[in-house]
Amino acid sequence: MRPSGRAPDAIRSVSIEPGFSYHAEGSVLIRMGRTEVLCAASVESRVPPFMRGQGLGWVTAEYGMLPRATHSRGEREAARGKQSGRTQEIQRLIGRSLRAVVDRKAMGEMSITVDCDVLNADGGTRCAAITGAWVALSLAFNTLVAKRVMATVPLTGQVAGISCGLTDLGAVLDLDYAEDRNAHADANFVLTETGGIVEIQATAEQAPFSEAQLHELMRLARLGTGTLFEAQRAAISGALAKVASR
Amino acid sequence: MRPSGRAPDAIRSVSIEPGFSYHAEGSVLIRMGRTEVLCAASVESRVPPFMRGQGLGWVTAEYGMLPRATHSRGEREAARGKQSGRTQEIQRLIGRSLRAVVDRKAMGEMSITVDCDVLNADGGTRCAAITGAWVALSLAFNTLVAKRVMATVPLTGQVAGISCGLTDLGAVLDLDYAEDRNAHADANFVLTETGGIVEIQATAEQAPFSEAQLHELMRLARLGTGTLFEAQRAAISGALAKVASR
Amino acid sequence: MRPSGRAPDAIRSVSIEPGFSYHAEGSVLIRMGRTEVLCAASVESRVPPFMRGQGLGWVTAEYGMLPRATHSRGEREAARGKQSGRTQEIQRLIGRSLRAVVDRKAMGEMSITVDCDVLNADGGTRCAAITGAWVALSLAFNTLVAKRVMATVPLTGQVAGISCGLTDLGAVLDLDYAEDRNAHADANFVLTETGGIVEIQATAEQAPFSEAQLHELMRLARLGTGTLFEAQRAAISGALAKVASR
Amino acid sequence: MRPSGRAPDAIRSVSIEPGFSYHAEGSVLIRMGRTEVLCAASVESRVPPFMRGQGLGWVTAEYGMLPRATHSRGEREAARGKQSGRTQEIQRLIGRSLRAVVDRKAMGEMSITVDCDVLNADGGTRCAAITGAWVALSLAFNTLVAKRVMATVPLTGQVAGISCGLTDLGAVLDLDYAEDRNAHADANFVLTETGGIVEIQATAEQAPFSEAQLHELMRLARLGTGTLFEAQRAAISGALAKVASR
Amino acid sequence: MRPSGRAPDAIRSVSIEPGFSYHAEGSVLIRMGRTEVLCAASVESRVPPFMRGQGLGWVTAEYGMLPRATHSRGEREAARGKQSGRTQEIQRLIGRSLRAVVDRKAMGEMSITVDCDVLNADGGTRCAAITGAWVALSLAFNTLVAKRVMATVPLTGQVAGISCGLTDLGAVLDLDYAEDRNAHADANFVLTETGGIVEIQATAEQAPFSEAQLHELMRLARLGTGTLFEAQRAAISGALAKVASR
Amino acid sequence: MRPSGRAPDAIRSVSIEPGFSYHAEGSVLIRMGRTEVLCAASVESRVPPFMRGQGLGWVTAEYGMLPRATHSRGEREAARGKQSGRTQEIQRLIGRSLRAVVDRKAMGEMSITVDCDVLNADGGTRCAAITGAWVALSLAFNTLVAKRVMATVPLTGQVAGISCGLTDLGAVLDLDYAEDRNAHADANFVLTETGGIVEIQATAEQAPFSEAQLHELMRLARLGTGTLFEAQRAAISGALAKVASR
Repeated sequence: MRPSGRAPDAIRSVSIEPGFSYHAEGSVLIRMGRTEVLCAASVESRVPPFMRGQGLGWVTAEYGMLPRATHSRGEREAARGKQSGRTQEIQRLIGRSLRAVVDRKAMGEMSITVDCDVLNADGGTRCAAITGAWVALSLAFNTLVAKRVMATVPLTGQVAGISCGLTDLGAVLDLDYAEDRNAHADANFVLTETGGIVEIQATAEQAPFSEAQLHELMRLARLGTGTLFEAQRAAISGALAKVASR
Repeated sequence: MRPSGRAPDAIRSVSIEPGFSYHAEGSVLIRMGRTEVLCAASVESRVPPFMRGQGLGWVTAEYGMLPRATHSRGEREAARGKQSGRTQEIQRLIGRSLRAVVDRKAMGEMSITVDCDVLNADGGTRCAAITGAWVALSLAFNTLVAKRVMATVPLTGQVAGISCGLTDLGAVLDLDYAEDRNAHADANFVLTETGGIVEIQATAEQAPFSEAQLHELMRLARLGTGTLFEAQRAAISGALAKVASR
Repeated sequence: MRPSGRAPDAIRSVSIEPGFSYHAEGSVLIRMGRTEVLCAASVESRVPPFMRGQGLGWVTAEYGMLPRATHSRGEREAARGKQSGRTQEIQRLIGRSLRAVVDRKAMGEMSITVDCDVLNADGGTRCAAITGAWVALSLAFNTLVAKRVMATVPLTGQVAGISCGLTDLGAVLDLDYAEDRNAHADANFVLTETGGIVEIQATAEQAPFSEAQLHELMRLARLGTGTLFEAQRAAISGALAKVASR
Repeated sequence: MRPSGRAPDAIRSVSIEPGFSYHAEGSVLIRMGRTEVLCAASVESRVPPFMRGQGLGWVTAEYGMLPRATHSRGEREAARGKQSGRTQEIQRLIGRSLRAVVDRKAMGEMSITVDCDVLNADGGTRCAAITGAWVALSLAFNTLVAKRVMATVPLTGQVAGISCGLTDLGAVLDLDYAEDRNAHADANFVLTETGGIVEIQATAEQAPFSEAQLHELMRLARLGTGTLFEAQRAAISGALAKVASR
Repeated sequence: MRPSGRAPDAIRSVSIEPGFSYHAEGSVLIRMGRTEVLCAASVESRVPPFMRGQGLGWVTAEYGMLPRATHSRGEREAARGKQSGRTQEIQRLIGRSLRAVVDRKAMGEMSITVDCDVLNADGGTRCAAITGAWVALSLAFNTLVAKRVMATVPLTGQVAGISCGLTDLGAVLDLDYAEDRNAHADANFVLTETGGIVEIQATAEQAPFSEAQLHELMRLARLGTGTLFEAQRAAISGALAKVASR
Repeated sequence: MRPSGRAPDAIRSVSIEPGFSYHAEGSVLIRMGRTEVLCAASVESRVPPFMRGQGLGWVTAEYGMLPRATHSRGEREAARGKQSGRTQEIQRLIGRSLRAVVDRKAMGEMSITVDCDVLNADGGTRCAAITGAWVALSLAFNTLVAKRVMATVPLTGQVAGISCGLTDLGAVLDLDYAEDRNAHADANFVLTETGGIVEIQATAEQAPFSEAQLHELMRLARLGTGTLFEAQRAAISGALAKVASR
C-alpha cells in the first residue's frame, strides 16, 4: 500500500484559497495534502528591456521555498547569495507553462510576475505551483478587466501540473515526499483542460523505463489534472462571486 | 483620527497561531492586523564554528519578506543575490532579542535558528517577528523537553517587540504602514514581561525629538507589550494543551 | 523543405573525435553538423562531502558555451559572475543521464566530472553533450581499467540524446538552430541502446501538442539515437585500437 | 577603576584634524583616544535615480574598517565580496543622522557621500564616524558656498554621536574596546547641539536594564556630546580661518 | 637539455588556423606546441558607456581556460562565480597589446571584443593568446572592409607575444609548462614587427636577475616573434585567398 | 617643465612613518609627495591550506584604495561586491615582490599579510605600497625576533618600487598623477638594494618604445630606488631605536 494509504490513481485533497496576499492583483494559497504554495501575481505596466516595442505582454514566475518548508532546514537562498539550479529550473518551467495559455498579443505591453513560495513542502511543489499560479494569474487578469485596463481576460485555456511516478507498487498519481524519494522514475506533466500537452519532464531515477510505462503515467496525469481543472474553476468562481457581492 | 480609526494607545488585533509549519520543532503564524509573519524554529545539534567548545547554546534568526508582501512588488533577495542592509539589521535584532532571555548555559551546545518570513506586510514586521519568534522558540524548547533532550525550558523570561511613533496626532502605539511612512519619529521597543529593556531603536525621521517624547513612547510600548505577553502565553498554553490531549 | 534540405527523419552528419584534450582521462570533440562540443572527463580519487562513506562513486557534469559559439556574442558567464538557469538546467540533465547507466557501487568511492564546452552552437547542444559525454566517460573508465584502478568498466549501457520537434513540416529529427527557433514544440530524448527511456523533456513553444505527436517524436528519437549509439561504439573502438597499437 | 583610569563621566581626548584627504570637498581625521576615523565628503551634481525630480538633495554615508584596524586582522570586505550586516547597519545610521540636520530643500538636487573609514579601532567607531562626518559635511558645504554653488550652508544644526554603557562600575561614558566587550548594556546616542534626540540604539548585552538606567546613560551622553559639539565648532573655525588667510 | 629537446633559442611549432568559430567576424585556433587557444573577434556597433561620443573605437579582450585544459582539473570560473586575479590580469594585457596597434580614430565608434579561450594549456597561454588575437582582430577588420563598413583596415602594425625565461640551462625561448614551473625568472614580451616594445612583464620567481640577463631574454624574444609575425601574415593571406577564391 | 617643477631625475619627497597602526605587528605610513599609503603587516601562526606541511612561510599582500583617495570619488569595492582587476593585479605584484627577498624556509610555517591601503593617491601608489610594505614586513619580523618566535629576521635583502615614464619631456622619474595620465609609456621597476631586478612592468600607452628608452628608464629607476633604500633603512633604525629606548 502507498505510505498515505491512497489508491494508485488517487490524488491528494486539493484546496485553492484565493486572496491570501492582501496586496497582490491576484493570489491563492494552494494546498495538495501537506504541500502548501502561496502564489501571488503582480502586475507591472511595462515589459522587460528585451521585449520592448513588440506589442506583446510578458508573463514570468519566480519560485522559492521557505527554509523550514522541508523536513530538515535548508539554507536560505538569499543568505547564500544565489538561487540553486533546481530553483531556477522550476521557475523557468512555471513561466513557460503559464505563457502557453496566454494570448500575449491581446495582453498588450505589460508584465505579470507570479511569485510561488512554498510554505510547506511534501512533494509535488512545482506542480502545485503551476496549478495555483494559473489561478493567481487569472484573478489578476480579472482585476485588470474590472479596472478596465483590458476588455477581456487574455487566456486561451487552463493549465495545471501533476506528478506521477513508478514505485514498487507500479505507476502512482500525485507522489508525496515519502514516495517521491523512493520512486524508480518521476514524471511531471503540464496539461491543458482540453488534453493538450504543454510540458513533460520524465526522469528515470534508478533504471530506464519503457514507453508503455510512460503511457500509463500519462493516463494517471490526465485523471489527476481533471480534478485540478475543476478546483481551479471553482476557486475563480468563488473569488469573483465574492467580489461581485460586495 | 488615526487612518485605522484606533485610539492612540490601541494596539491592532493580535493572533498567534501555532503549528503553521509542519516540519519545524516550533512555529507560529503571528498576525498584527494585516501584518502576518511566519516564525519557524529549527533545532540543530551543533553550534557554529566560532561557538564550539564553550558549552553554550546558540540562538539566531533569519528574516525575509515575500516579494509581494508589500504594496508594490519588491525584488526577491535570492534573485538579487544578496540580502539588503535592512534585512540584515532586522535579523540581527531578532537574534539579539531572543538571546537576551535564553539561558545559553542551561541550553548546552546546540543551535536554534528562527526563520521569520513576512507573508503580508502592513508596518511593524520586525516587532511582530520578535514577538512571534519568541513563541516559536518556546515551542521548540518544549518539544526538546518532551523528547527529553533537555530537562527544562532554558528561558529566563518573555520578550516582545512593539513599534511606537510620533505623528501629527502625537504619540501613537503600533503603527501600521500608512502611519509609519508619515511619522516624525519611529521607535521600536523590545521589552521583557518584567519590564526590562532589551533593545530600543528610536529614530527621528524628520525633526529631532525630546526626552519627554521618548518617555511617552515608552509608556505606550509598555502598554502594548502587556497585551502581547498575554497573547504569547495563551498561544503556548493552547499548543501544549493540544499536544497533551493527543 | 527543411532549411538544411534534410529529410524529416534525417540526422546531421555526426563525428566523434577522441583525445582532443591532452590532459583529460577521457575526451572527445563531438560534431553534429555545425554544433561542436568538447567533452572532457576528469577523475578524482574522492567523492563530494555529501556522498562520503557510502561506498558509491559519483559522476557529474558541467556545461559551458564559449561567448562566440553563437550567432551574436553572449556574455561570458565567468565575467557575469554566475551561471544562467539554462546552463544549470543542462548540466544537471547531463549528469543525471550519465548516472543512469553507471554502476556506482562497482565504481567505488571516486568521482568523475565531465566538462562539456560548446565551441560552436547550431542547435541541439545539450543532446550532443550527452552523447559525447558518455564516450568521454567510457574512455576515462577504460583508462582506469588500463591503470588497474578498477577491474572492469562500470557501465550498464550506452546513453545518447537527440532533439526532435514539431515544425510547419510536421515532426522532424535533430533540429538545427534555424529550425529550433521556429519550432511549435521541442522535445529532448535521452535513451539507452536497449530502448529504455532515461529522460524526456518535451515543451510546447507555441501551442500544446497531442499524445499522438509525442509518439511520432519518440519514433524519430529512436531512429536518431540508433545512429548515435553506433558512432559512440566506433569512436571507442577506434580510440582503444590506437592505444593498443602503441 | 575603568581600564583607562578615566572617571565614569570622562570622555577620551578628542581631536578633529581637517583636510586629511587632499581631494575631498571636506574631510577630517577624527581621533577619540586610539579610535581614528577618516571622514571624507564627496559632492556629486546629481541625486540617485529614486530621488530625481523632487528638488531635494541627498546625503548618504559609507563605512569601512581597514583589515588591521582591529586587534586581530579582519577579512577585507572587498575580498570577501560583501559588506557585513554590521557595516551596513552602521552606514545606514550615519546617513540618517546627517540627514536629520540637513535642509534638503535648500540643498537642491545634488548628492554628498561621506566615506567614514576606520584607520584604528578602539571602541566607539560608529559614534566617532558620525561626529567626524558632520564636520566633513559642513566643510564640503562651506566649499560649495565658497564656489557660489549655494548661497548658505544648508544645515539646521550640529549632530554628534557618543556611546555609553553599563559596566561593573555602573554607567560610564565613551567606552573603549576593553570596556565595550564586557559591558552589560551598550547605548549609542545621536544628539543635536540643542538637545534633540536623533537616534538611540540601546542594547542589553547580558541582562535587560531599567528605564532609570536609560536616563542615567542619556545624562552621560548629553555631557559627552557637549564636548564634541565644541570640538566640531573649533575644527570648522580653524579650517575656515586657514582658508581665509590664504 | 631542455625537457622538449629544443635548442635554447628554438620556438615550438606554431600553427594558426583561421575560421574555427563559424559565427565570429574573425577567428583562429592558434597552436604553439600543445598550447591551443581559440581566439574569436566579435564586432558590436557601439562602444561602452565610458567611451561614448569621443569618436574613437574600442578593442578589448576576454580570457578563459577550459577546466581541463590543465594537468589537473581547475574549478570552472563561471561556477565559482568570479574570475581569478590571474584571468583578469591576462585579459587586461591582451586588450592593451591589441590597442597599441589599432588606429582607434580611423576605426570610428564601434567595439571589437576578442575572446581567447584556452582549449589545451602547456605554458605560454597569454602570449599565444596575444599572437592569435591579433590575427582574429585583423580578419574581423577585413570582414568589415569587405562589408564596406570601413574603407581600410585600421591597424598600424602587427603585435605578438612570446615568453622567455631563465632556467638551469640559462636563457631559453618559449617555455613550455615543464620549464616554466622550474624557471628562475619568467618574462613575457609583447613586441611589434618593427621592433617596438609594447609590453614587458618580467618576474623573478626565485632570485633577482641582472640587466644583462634581461637583454639576453629580449634578444630571444626578438628572435621568437620574428617567426610569429611570419605565421600571422601567412594565416591572413591564406584566409583572404580562400575568401577571394569563393 | 614637469608639472611639479621637478628635474627629470628627481624623486618626490619621501617619508616613512612607522607605527601608524596601533595593532599591527609592523606598520608604516609611507608618503611620496601627495601619495600616501598605510602598510600594516599582520602575523598569523599558520599558512593557507595549499601551503601546509611544506615547512615554508607565506607572505602575501592585499591592496585597497579609499573611495575618495582620488580626484573624483570611486565606487567602494566592498559595496560593489568585488575587487577590480587592477586591484588584484597590484596586490599580486606586491606579494611577489616581498616574497622575492624572504627566506621562507628560515621563516617556518607561518603567514604574514601586508595590507596596503591608499589614503591619498597622486600616482605611483603600487610602487609606494611595495616600498612601504617591505618596511612593515621588516618591522613585523623584528617584533617576532623580539618575542623570540624566530632567531633572526629572515630577509635576504631590501626591495623597493619606483615608476618611470616617457613623457613629452623624455624619460622622467617618479611620475605623479598629472604626468602619468599623459605619459607615452609607463614602467614600474621593483629592484633590490644590490641592483637585482625583481619585476619590470613596462607598458606603451600610446606608441611602442625602443630598447634604448627602456635602458634610460631603468637608469632612472636605479637612481630613485637608491633614495628609497636609504629611507627604508632610516625608518627601521628609527623604529628600533625607539623600541630599545623604552
